[in-house]
Amino acid sequence: MSDKVLNRFFLPKSVVVFGASESIYSYGTRFIQALHDFGYKGKIYAVNYKGEKTLGHKIYRSLDEIKDKIDLAFITVSAKYILGTLNECIAKDIKAAVAFTAGFSETGAQGRELEKEIVKTIGGKLRLIGPNCFGPYCPSGGITVVTGGEFAKESGPVALIAQSGQLSECIIARAQGEGIRYSKFASYGNAIDVNEADLIDFLMDDKNTRIITQYLEGVRDGRRFFDIARRNAGEKPHIIWKVGLTQMGASASSSHTGSLAGTGAAWDAFFRQTGAVQVSTLDEMTDATVAFNHLPKGCGMRVGYISGGGAGTVLGADACDTAGMEMPAFTKQTENKLAELLPGVGLSFRNPVDVGNPHPPKELLYGLLSTMAADKNVDVVVVRRILFSVKMSKIFSGSTAPSEKDQKELLEVPVKVLKKYGKPVIIILPDDMTGTESIYLEEERRKIRDYFFANGIAVFMSEQRTFAALSHLSKFQQRNRTGRAADKKIPAPVKGSKTRKLFLNILEKTETPIMDEIQCKKVLKSAGIKVTLPVLAASKKEAVAAADRMGYPVAMKIVSPQITHKSDIGGVKLKLQNKADIGKAYDEIMAAVRKKAAKARIDGVSIQKMAQPGLELVIGMTRDPQFGPMLMFGLGGTSVEILKDVAFRITPLTRQDAGEMVRQIKGYRLLEGYRGQPPVDIEYLEDTLMKLSSFIEENPEIKEMDINPLFAYKKGAVAVDARIILDEK
Amino acid sequence: MSDKVLNRFFLPKSVVVFGASESIYSYGTRFIQALHDFGYKGKIYAVNYKGEKTLGHKIYRSLDEIKDKIDLAFITVSAKYILGTLNECIAKDIKAAVAFTAGFSETGAQGRELEKEIVKTIGGKLRLIGPNCFGPYCPSGGITVVTGGEFAKESGPVALIAQSGQLSECIIARAQGEGIRYSKFASYGNAIDVNEADLIDFLMDDKNTRIITQYLEGVRDGRRFFDIARRNAGEKPHIIWKVGLTQMGASASSSHTGSLAGTGAAWDAFFRQTGAVQVSTLDEMTDATVAFNHLPKGCGMRVGYISGGGAGTVLGADACDTAGMEMPAFTKQTENKLAELLPGVGLSFRNPVDVGNPHPPKELLYGLLSTMAADKNVDVVVVRRILFSVKMSKIFSGSTAPSEKDQKELLEVPVKVLKKYGKPVIIILPDDMTGTESIYLEEERRKIRDYFFANGIAVFMSEQRTFAALSHLSKFQQRNRTGRAADKKIPAPVKGSKTRKLFLNILEKTETPIMDEIQCKKVLKSAGIKVTLPVLAASKKEAVAAADRMGYPVAMKIVSPQITHKSDIGGVKLKLQNKADIGKAYDEIMAAVRKKAAKARIDGVSIQKMAQPGLELVIGMTRDPQFGPMLMFGLGGTSVEILKDVAFRITPLTRQDAGEMVRQIKGYRLLEGYRGQPPVDIEYLEDTLMKLSSFIEENPEIKEMDINPLFAYKKGAVAVDARIILDEK
Repeated sequence: MSDKVLNRFFLPKSVVVFGASESIYSYGTRFIQALHDFGYKGKIYAVNYKGEKTLGHKIYRSLDEIKDKIDLAFITVSAKYILGTLNECIAKDIKAAVAFTAGFSETGAQGRELEKEIVKTIGGKLRLIGPNCFGPYCPSGGITVVTGGEFAKESGPVALIAQSGQLSECIIARAQGEGIRYSKFASYGNAIDVNEADLIDFLMDDKNTRIITQYLEGVRDGRRFFDIARRNAGEKPHIIWKVGLTQMGASASSSHTGSLAGTGAAWDAFFRQTGAVQVSTLDEMTDATVAFNHLPKGCGMRVGYISGGGAGTVLGADACDTAGMEMPAFTKQTENKLAELLPGVGLSFRNPVDVGNPHPPKELLYGLLSTMAADKNVDVVVVRRILFSVKMSKIFSGSTAPSEKDQKELLEVPVKVLKKYGKPVIIILPDDMTGTESIYLEEERRKIRDYFFANGIAVFMSEQRTFAALSHLSKFQQRNRTGRAADKKIPAPVKGSKTRKLFLNILEKTETPIMDEIQCKKVLKSAGIKVTLPVLAASKKEAVAAADRMGYPVAMKIVSPQITHKSDIGGVKLKLQNKADIGKAYDEIMAAVRKKAAKARIDGVSIQKMAQPGLELVIGMTRDPQFGPMLMFGLGGTSVEILKDVAFRITPLTRQDAGEMVRQIKGYRLLEGYRGQPPVDIEYLEDTLMKLSSFIEENPEIKEMDINPLFAYKKGAVAVDARIILDEK
Repeated sequence: MSDKVLNRFFLPKSVVVFGASESIYSYGTRFIQALHDFGYKGKIYAVNYKGEKTLGHKIYRSLDEIKDKIDLAFITVSAKYILGTLNECIAKDIKAAVAFTAGFSETGAQGRELEKEIVKTIGGKLRLIGPNCFGPYCPSGGITVVTGGEFAKESGPVALIAQSGQLSECIIARAQGEGIRYSKFASYGNAIDVNEADLIDFLMDDKNTRIITQYLEGVRDGRRFFDIARRNAGEKPHIIWKVGLTQMGASASSSHTGSLAGTGAAWDAFFRQTGAVQVSTLDEMTDATVAFNHLPKGCGMRVGYISGGGAGTVLGADACDTAGMEMPAFTKQTENKLAELLPGVGLSFRNPVDVGNPHPPKELLYGLLSTMAADKNVDVVVVRRILFSVKMSKIFSGSTAPSEKDQKELLEVPVKVLKKYGKPVIIILPDDMTGTESIYLEEERRKIRDYFFANGIAVFMSEQRTFAALSHLSKFQQRNRTGRAADKKIPAPVKGSKTRKLFLNILEKTETPIMDEIQCKKVLKSAGIKVTLPVLAASKKEAVAAADRMGYPVAMKIVSPQITHKSDIGGVKLKLQNKADIGKAYDEIMAAVRKKAAKARIDGVSIQKMAQPGLELVIGMTRDPQFGPMLMFGLGGTSVEILKDVAFRITPLTRQDAGEMVRQIKGYRLLEGYRGQPPVDIEYLEDTLMKLSSFIEENPEIKEMDINPLFAYKKGAVAVDARIILDEK
């Protein structure tokens, strides 16, 4: 359940502004000005220790003087006064505050200490957004940010959250032009109390929000954020512009917000597991929002494409293919009808359709679009380079351009088709001429765009941007259709299992942060993983006895807490066939170890049965600083080390996660059985991943794990070597 | 040497227009109108069998009536009259003609026949651009296309060629706004005479063209185009927007121009080998042209980046990293100076720099930019989100925005820094607000952009687009610096070698399109490739004798012109150690073949010495429909078949091509010696590729070739199996 108090940030009946003054340059005063400009209907109070008047409001010397109940405090006082101000708020039972003030963790150690003090001070009594933020914008609540006096006053179905105030401005400013209106927005800055997880949780439950968008540098509470995003799993589109995914970007990010940026692999897993929509530029963010905003939920995504000219069909087809979308063949009936309508030579009546010229008569355009929309194979109609602009037509067609009246009627054609067939129509409307003297063309273009948006037709700037936006929607629909969204069976955490007891037992005894192979395999076996269990032999005699017991061939490896790369120093012997082999191998290993690791404490050698050769796989685990443990799956050998053909998932895995990660690697074809080899036991591998996910979750002392190789067979699989590294903390 | 006659298309002293009429709708008349509007200074004649007057010109009934010499004919008559018109032109010794007329190969078989007739008719006597094209535009010649009456009249250093007239319009219209001016442009349509190779050749030699840009669907004469582009090898930037690279795009393309679109692999090789700059959208085309146009030739590309706000540093660093560019560390001195200039807390004085707010005073901005420009580690300064717009500042900063005067002086700062330090300064100037009511902001933005362009400062719309554009320039510079551009040692074609004779000899005898292993290895050995040469044995006795001669272990394989997948039917036996093995293997193979390929003609078995195991590689050859033969190099086994880790190059290879293709594959680390393995003989592999390149070039009857596996060793390599498929034509 999300925190309902958060509603007060967006729909406060009364606000108090700390730090307003007579100076119009003070942020407090600028905020009051912005509320005035924006038309806030609630009560506004101002507080400043000096007491004054500003913008027609009395400035109270202290909160005590105000008798009314206050829903929201907006704090712009400098950092050193913030604790006092918060205490005042708590005393007055204010439940929500925004701290605009900067100068905290982003500036260094002292700021971090101050933030800790704040957290202690508010301790559950008040929810705080900030510090170092722009706060909320909510048209229905009449609330806006300092710089948002000119933001749109109409509400819409889109929510936005972002750490960065500046980027939020850019996103909102851009979105407004593209027909997007907001339900709620918050810039949350350093996020010491209310963070992205709280806000997303709140917005998931918010009835006025249909689409959630987010600009994200790093997360405060990665695990909770992941859980909340995954719980949503495709119900509300959740579009995230995650920056700092490159190494350079991450280091620029941490220098400015102090938050961790996360590795690429972890974020890749995040997006795959949650179904959140990943975008990587402002344009892509805007376009994806337009697509989700204007296209009906659950609509199919097979595109019928039409272009006023042949080159446009190539561009469209390229963009469609690149985006992984589909341009299905029309029915024979449709093709015949189009051929009738287009008597020109050399034109294409197939999908994509070439009209031949960019200003067809309105009857022709209506005929073409409605024929396409009527086709049962088509879900969406995309229209490219039809010159809806009268002025542009004049430039490109001179005296042969259509009349203004004809052109205006042309504009109505897509709207009529949309209404009649109920299938989305999309217009590609680029800014062809960007010269300063051509500004009138841009003005006309925007009016045409607005007309289409107002009539339910999405408009994009280019073929690439159209198909990129549609592909986001398409993947979202696809996920929902395949039931992926419904996969919410996140395994319940296991507690106090016998494996846990065994693990803790070993942990107590182990002296180094690296568990030896025998220890590893014992706990893995207990966790349900099939292993070639080694036996410790303290002498040559014990080694022979152990080998005789388990049957030949066997492998022998040195056991020493100081030696981790055993084969590098000659500490591993394989395929030993008999007693004599054992004796020789034992002597050789001891000689090699004495020479190359003279100081190592030798516990003996391990003896284990050689596993039947199988398909060589690797399962690993590492700990992401933001999301915690992640499992890795891949082919062994050079595939993992050189070609990096691996898949990551954040634990706990769902069954679907396990299935998808196995299938994600390029080498999956080998698992399916390649060139006459039998397929390996994929279900068993999924089981193994699920068991390891539980194991990893239950044992937080594990920092890293490698099962390498895991041999997979037609039936089952076996861990041939394994290594666990413990967290030293 | 390029054809100087092509100059007449761009700088004609007189033109004749066929097909002009009294109707303003006729293309001929529209063309004359365009020449008038554009200000063509030469003589204009019009011809039409009816005779009339149009736009102040007499229309002659035939060319005979015109006494003057004519440089260029512009033909708009319908397809059926075109042969007659061309004959008239030839009779009057006109050397250059543009056929605007459509209705040829793009419409089907009849059109293709007509094109063949035209080619025959003009046969070297006249150069023709078209048909189905827009023709040339050349400001210095006063020549423009039908729809280009409003194209810029100033010349510039950029040339453009394109098949598609419509896309050319889009490219030119867009480029004009971004400060780009053209030397010459041609839309060449069906290219039955003058094609892309002729035009590129001509433009490479054109002194007024510094940058060549090209929109390309398919090529007419791929081999010549490749040769010309490669000869240029980085001297003039050659920017190509190649479309139809996806499967969908290629099929849309062939339906509209009839030209082949080429496979992705062939075009990838083309770009790597020629150094042409590949772009894939109109925006990217424009941006790359802006970068080459405004940044000095040979300038370094280490970026000093500054942003008016922290989020912008993350976006910049991400974009820089994604584009593979560098943001070097500043010198200590620079960092100290920046820290002095920026007393704000939490800001970054390192690269990328965060100014903290988007409208710094002009003195501060000058201090920051000049400090960065003075740093010896910085080659280019990129400025992001400094609000040069007075109007935008008012929106975001309200009453605290700087004055108009201050803002205007702010605008001059980058120009001053550029002048003083001589290092390029780049401004990122996005269109923040795209609402219709914000059109005045866009107008102001364009004026600011124009001011910067006019003062030698490149302007881009976003971080991504900036770094993408710079990375094109950077790669181009890099190639020049590493001497790649100077690598013009294209091996001379070999003719009449003894290998050729041997190949022709075998060709004569062979009955199927597949050469058998013995034949393949014989010619490869003759071409200098080390092989395990098999010996044909027609009986068990011969097999034993052959094995005894060459020494054990050996391999035995069935030899039959009907059996290509030998191992699938049990026709291969490996690691035969002695006479007895040979006898057994022979009997088993014959039994298997009798059972599974009863009708195949059996020539016997081949016996060959087993090669020492080595690193398994593959070298292949295939024939691209546009560029001809290509060599492929990759790791063997699953790497090539499943992971597709291979590199292609168009033959003939230069030595540098061979070196680069070996290093291009991800598995190259294995070749260098991985995990204690010795490195393989890379020089020998390059030699092998060079020899195969000559071999392939000299034997055009080869359609496909596979050397799989090729075992590579510390010294040398050997072809263990090989297959050649012949062209059946």
